[in-house]
Amino acid sequence: MPKNRFHLKVILNVLGSMLFFNGLFMLACLPIALIYQAEGGGMMEMAGFWEFLIPGLGSILFGLGSWFATRKHSGNLSKRDGYLIVSLGWLLMSVVGALPYYLFGGVEFPDFACALFESVSGFTTTGASVINDIEAMPRSILFWRSLTHWIGGMGIIVLTIAILPLLGIGGMQLFVAEAPGPTADKLHPRITETAKRLWVIYVMLTVVETILLLFCGLDLYHAVNHAFATVSTGGFSTQNASLAAYGPAVHYVVIVFMFLSGMNFSLTYWGLKGQLHRIWRNEEFRAYLFSVLIITAIATALVFSYDPQKLNVSLEEAFRDALFQVIAVITTTGFVTEDFTAWGPFLKVVFFLMMFMGASAGSTSGGVKIVRHILILKNGILEFKRQLHPHAILPLRYNKKAVEGKIAYNVLAFFLVYMALYCFGCLIMAAWGFDFETVLGSVATSLGNVGPGLGQVNPVSNFAFFNQGQKFFLSFLMLLGRLELFTVLIVLTPFFWKKY
Amino acid sequence: MPKNRFHLKVILNVLGSMLFFNGLFMLACLPIALIYQAEGGGMMEMAGFWEFLIPGLGSILFGLGSWFATRKHSGNLSKRDGYLIVSLGWLLMSVVGALPYYLFGGVEFPDFACALFESVSGFTTTGASVINDIEAMPRSILFWRSLTHWIGGMGIIVLTIAILPLLGIGGMQLFVAEAPGPTADKLHPRITETAKRLWVIYVMLTVVETILLLFCGLDLYHAVNHAFATVSTGGFSTQNASLAAYGPAVHYVVIVFMFLSGMNFSLTYWGLKGQLHRIWRNEEFRAYLFSVLIITAIATALVFSYDPQKLNVSLEEAFRDALFQVIAVITTTGFVTEDFTAWGPFLKVVFFLMMFMGASAGSTSGGVKIVRHILILKNGILEFKRQLHPHAILPLRYNKKAVEGKIAYNVLAFFLVYMALYCFGCLIMAAWGFDFETVLGSVATSLGNVGPGLGQVNPVSNFAFFNQGQKFFLSFLMLLGRLELFTVLIVLTPFFWKKY
Repeated sequence: MPKNRFHLKVILNVLGSMLFFNGLFMLACLPIALIYQAEGGGMMEMAGFWEFLIPGLGSILFGLGSWFATRKHSGNLSKRDGYLIVSLGWLLMSVVGALPYYLFGGVEFPDFACALFESVSGFTTTGASVINDIEAMPRSILFWRSLTHWIGGMGIIVLTIAILPLLGIGGMQLFVAEAPGPTADKLHPRITETAKRLWVIYVMLTVVETILLLFCGLDLYHAVNHAFATVSTGGFSTQNASLAAYGPAVHYVVIVFMFLSGMNFSLTYWGLKGQLHRIWRNEEFRAYLFSVLIITAIATALVFSYDPQKLNVSLEEAFRDALFQVIAVITTTGFVTEDFTAWGPFLKVVFFLMMFMGASAGSTSGGVKIVRHILILKNGILEFKRQLHPHAILPLRYNKKAVEGKIAYNVLAFFLVYMALYCFGCLIMAAWGFDFETVLGSVATSLGNVGPGLGQVNPVSNFAFFNQGQKFFLSFLMLLGRLELFTVLIVLTPFFWKKY
Repeated sequence: MPKNRFHLKVILNVLGSMLFFNGLFMLACLPIALIYQAEGGGMMEMAGFWEFLIPGLGSILFGLGSWFATRKHSGNLSKRDGYLIVSLGWLLMSVVGALPYYLFGGVEFPDFACALFESVSGFTTTGASVINDIEAMPRSILFWRSLTHWIGGMGIIVLTIAILPLLGIGGMQLFVAEAPGPTADKLHPRITETAKRLWVIYVMLTVVETILLLFCGLDLYHAVNHAFATVSTGGFSTQNASLAAYGPAVHYVVIVFMFLSGMNFSLTYWGLKGQLHRIWRNEEFRAYLFSVLIITAIATALVFSYDPQKLNVSLEEAFRDALFQVIAVITTTGFVTEDFTAWGPFLKVVFFLMMFMGASAGSTSGGVKIVRHILILKNGILEFKRQLHPHAILPLRYNKKAVEGKIAYNVLAFFLVYMALYCFGCLIMAAWGFDFETVLGSVATSLGNVGPGLGQVNPVSNFAFFNQGQKFFLSFLMLLGRLELFTVLIVLTPFFWKKY
């Protein structure tokens, strides 16, 4: 990505192929609709058929057309092209992906804002929903919801492994430098190779989880849907009660796969190659593991002793609920087995703060990511030493290597921009008149791509009650958070469009 | 401060003289007690007499003794000495300053935690109180409360102008470099000169405000108390209703002096010298002014239209209340004319966020300070340009001068440590079981030295209901915030005590 010009042809070419694949995925929902209809789920109008056929074929045609018309491009990409492709790409997918919901309409999707919210929430792997009665929806629509998660997750893998490091956003060049394959600075020629390797892991995780869920008694449809929502750290469920609809075995399977999906996929790759020491040597992984264990231990103790509804939960239940919810929020999946906002004031604050954590960089999870917190914390401690010894050279170290000053600076700036956007989001939502907890929770969960929030958007509620403007705004925050802020924001600045 | 050793003699010498002056100030409360008693306010036991005489004389004796025994010191101060003097100095003043409250006892000060909280809240110019019925207290006690604010304010001027820049904390060397007198790096030999100049302004502001308040109909006692609490941006009032006990004229006087006390005192100095362009040229001042104006405009409109109690407030009242509360919170004074937490959900979030702002560096206000927000914001914007032009040199500018990279880094680190401490504080308070708003509000207001918070510590409430542990913890947060975090934290690290 050497030059700073736009290459309209390349942009349209990439967007065209994205649209094409999006169309193919839409058509994949048709068999579900047909089976559902055949099983007596309803007439074709009720099962969701034309809702996929029309936008699906449209996407394929437009995508192919755009791709074909621009196939003779230079092949060069500037940084600006990169920003545009990522931002427009995710927006295009979300808008087109909203069409099935919009065409289906009904009580759950009365306007385009609802459809777009659900679609953005899907492609950004957030998992916040506007659907009140999920189980009343046709299977094809629910399958498309889960599929958008899964497509979004695939997109994020390419984004974090191949694109963000080149754009140099928020220190991403550092965190994914251990990716299997070519080194970060030589990544470009072999992007597809690296991405493919990680996609194989992604698909493998999906398949294995599906098989295990089948083994736990789920039918193929529910197993696949939940596997899609887990490995993408999305969180859409096909059940109104989310994961609370299932028993302990399903919970433990999902716990394991949420945790795996919150790991850096490169580490999983090395792990599968038998190089387990690489996983253990990784500072972010250790911090991730210990955060989960420590917070779970505290939460278990509190859930076990708190028990406001006098249900006499067993220690195992308390442990399982605590572990499940901690991993669900840290990995930004957002599945629900219990309402963590009802676990007393301390855990409410803990879960609120966890919405800012995120899991590992190089995973499908959202949020700030643990590695950035590590660097910020380490840098904070170094500041003390620097105060005392202003002339000593005290480099920031990560995985035993010194971190370039510029990268450390990027990380600090990323977090501060994240907090600034968070404050901005809170002001906007507060201006709409929501209560304190709903404001702080809805913005944190949207920006962090978690799913459930606090107050009126607690884990057992949903986002249906927001008006159109609020839904558009929260969708915007989800996109911002998902694309590591700068990718979207930079396109919105005037100097991005300046000519050079 | 060249070497990195402790100089116990110097430390004891400085602490001794602080103790001595503290004792003198305590004795200054005796006339108030005598006048109050003579006016029929109660017997000597009720008026507060021995409560000041004993610790006052004790402080003077101990202080003189310590000073005399260590008068033959080398005169050299290391950085470590600086940290110790500041941290221990503030702690010593607070503990000794708590004795009058503790000796007075009664329903308002049943234990030492209450007394210490009130004392720390005074010396850190926070203004949070544990007293339920302020007007039932003897005048001498209330005068001591206001006096601790005023002493604290004097201490902060020395701290920010002379000590923090040398310690290099959070970019302070930059913000006060424009201080009248010697330049920052040559400050040491003439510390007292610079401090004295600014103290003159501080005393002048106090005197002028007192005169204006007398003019508005307050008696000398109330006028002096409120002037002390204003110029130090403290916030203790001698009235149960705080400033709501007075009329519009008093409000406007206090508004003006709160605003002035939130300005960099160096700028006020130049202003008094007739160099008004220096004030206008200062970026932080402009941001301070415009923040106040913009937030006031919005708040006025909302307060005027919201009016939940159907009091039919006039536009002037709405404007006055909005302006008063905005300045009271931005400058971290914390005086109250109206309960801003009852002004609807939007303003609640706005005021919550304002608790993190603080006014100008080089003023007596607490919090993060506006200049740091400016640099963080500017740096955030620069990050976008750096993303697009990674090889361009884009320096951070403040007041039209390039800011050294190291200082920018210090500022970012300061803010991040502030936020980390904030999260830590919230977790601790939440563990005690308080509701979400009380947790977030009490920690924000303590760390920012504001005074009023949210929830159970809203502006028309107080901090009496907290238990002893909670009072100690919040006192600790007030000290942390007041001493720019690092000064206290660094003393608590193991490597501070390592030998070299």
